[in-house]
Amino acid sequence: MSTALTIALDAMGGDHAPSIVVDGASLARERFPDLRFILFGDEARLLPLVAKYPKLLECSEIRHTDQAVANDMKPSMALRNAKNSSMRLAINAVHDGEAQGIVSAGNTGALMVLATVVLKTLPGINRPAIAGYLPSMRGDVVMLDLGANLDCDADNLVQFAIMGDLFAKTVLGLPEPVVGLLNVGSEEQKGHESVREAAAVLRDSDFPVKFHGFIEGNDVLEGKVDVVVIDGFAGNVALKTVEGVVKFYSNVMTKAFQGSFLARIGYLLARATLRKARQRVDPRQYNGAMLLGLNGVVVKSHGGADAIGFANAIGVSADMLGYGYNDKIIAEFERVNAHRASLEKATPSA
Amino acid sequence: MSTALTIALDAMGGDHAPSIVVDGASLARERFPDLRFILFGDEARLLPLVAKYPKLLECSEIRHTDQAVANDMKPSMALRNAKNSSMRLAINAVHDGEAQGIVSAGNTGALMVLATVVLKTLPGINRPAIAGYLPSMRGDVVMLDLGANLDCDADNLVQFAIMGDLFAKTVLGLPEPVVGLLNVGSEEQKGHESVREAAAVLRDSDFPVKFHGFIEGNDVLEGKVDVVVIDGFAGNVALKTVEGVVKFYSNVMTKAFQGSFLARIGYLLARATLRKARQRVDPRQYNGAMLLGLNGVVVKSHGGADAIGFANAIGVSADMLGYGYNDKIIAEFERVNAHRASLEKATPSA
Repeated sequence: MSTALTIALDAMGGDHAPSIVVDGASLARERFPDLRFILFGDEARLLPLVAKYPKLLECSEIRHTDQAVANDMKPSMALRNAKNSSMRLAINAVHDGEAQGIVSAGNTGALMVLATVVLKTLPGINRPAIAGYLPSMRGDVVMLDLGANLDCDADNLVQFAIMGDLFAKTVLGLPEPVVGLLNVGSEEQKGHESVREAAAVLRDSDFPVKFHGFIEGNDVLEGKVDVVVIDGFAGNVALKTVEGVVKFYSNVMTKAFQGSFLARIGYLLARATLRKARQRVDPRQYNGAMLLGLNGVVVKSHGGADAIGFANAIGVSADMLGYGYNDKIIAEFERVNAHRASLEKATPSA
Repeated sequence: MSTALTIALDAMGGDHAPSIVVDGASLARERFPDLRFILFGDEARLLPLVAKYPKLLECSEIRHTDQAVANDMKPSMALRNAKNSSMRLAINAVHDGEAQGIVSAGNTGALMVLATVVLKTLPGINRPAIAGYLPSMRGDVVMLDLGANLDCDADNLVQFAIMGDLFAKTVLGLPEPVVGLLNVGSEEQKGHESVREAAAVLRDSDFPVKFHGFIEGNDVLEGKVDVVVIDGFAGNVALKTVEGVVKFYSNVMTKAFQGSFLARIGYLLARATLRKARQRVDPRQYNGAMLLGLNGVVVKSHGGADAIGFANAIGVSADMLGYGYNDKIIAEFERVNAHRASLEKATPSA
């Protein structure tokens, strides 16, 4: 990074704010010593927390506000009535160029709406998408959209594919990520019109994404692809279904281990490796979400995150900024649009 | 049952046809001694198989055809070119009144299309739905649609709610099943327009369904409701995601048990109860699917089912027939439409 990067923090968002925000920022600073922070929130509460970390104090600025977006506030209300909230002011700081990214553990719907209205989408992107990680048998998988757009047309899905591909390249460091479109079957003729149209665009060998084709729900955690593209309704349902199945399975296993004396002894012996295994399937490990496609880097930390989780969310935003994720999106879309325009020139419509 | 029921069997459908179809029919006959069968398929192969079971032979008729619908055949091709297939002839038998239900372990898409075209939907039902079971922490859950209708309007979803409710009442024997609409959040303003409109209809206290409201993906396996209503695209993605997560989790656990000497010993001690637990979460246990809303009972057995699985599928069709499932749907829709008409009369539009 040539110049110091500044991250705006919604210090009042999340179940354990503001303490985990401050603790998380301090942890993130150790990994990214060049970062600077602007913390938005209740100064009287924030100052003693930040003062515990002299190095954090040095690279941080506190901006006081006593308004915060409640967890149950409707996004439309947040937009109208929370103009001085810690979340809104943090987003404004990105819009005004004081910060390049914002991290919040607050109300997801409000963050989505406020960030979209204030920051607007990047050129070439019609709608932002929420992206997240899932575990798989072959490593982490990026999935988008997870709920920002309930209805998606083919253009939206194609844009999500490009954004997800670049995210996997820049943040996960995969040299050639494979992108799949989630559908109800793997054959070409299956699925919604929007999904089939998007697949037709992505199959073009000149398109800058390595496209696997359609995948089905059971392929996601098998790691058949690195990036899973889906509309926000089915994506949200799928993500939360994963959480539900893991909880159900854990519950059944716990009961099984209590089911007999031998099983209880067995559990005691296997406990150490089982704990590690459960951690691996715990969806809370993967709960940070990125709002992709906006003029500025926006990362949502899980509302119940601890300091380590919040530091990871800051880390993702620092990675996205450090690798110039948004600049790459802009460049890629210019390239894609130029290619499409040349195709149209070559084959004028009748 | 007052009169004998006849089930038409697609004897050539599924990975292990025709043997598991015949073995399954024999098992089902033991549970339902009044059932009669018409088996459609290759007579030369079927006759010796059926002859092994003298009691099955007595209550069965074999109708020869040498055509079958292949697993990878497109539904449109099956419709045009498989008019003498075992699947098509079995469906025709229901249409012609020779049988009241049909069970097939063959190509799902083809079964869906052929059954819809030949049998047509019940009065009041715009589109049939595929329903299936999932396990949950509180017992089995019925979920529909699982892929028959990729785009659903509010009317479709309301009809699915009624069909699922009656299925839970008649086949699962639940006196007052609770129905939930799967959505991206539990608040009233969340989700697609179709989902919100359907919820508004279902919330009416005179509506003959006990409506819980919106549920999210993680609520399904928690057993928050007995019937889960969703469009076929997201429903199919969710169902297959469940399969994928269970496979992933099992894989991680297996590796964990091999991860240390102590864990291996622990596994040996806990093996018996763990096997039972895994069986409980195995989605193959729940893979039979019902095509609801057609003039006739149509049940799809899993393609890889064994004889017990196929017998269960026959059992579901016998239950649906025995309890007069389709008659109840017709009566319920008459009641609902009369109620809606009376509401419209009471509040004439301006």
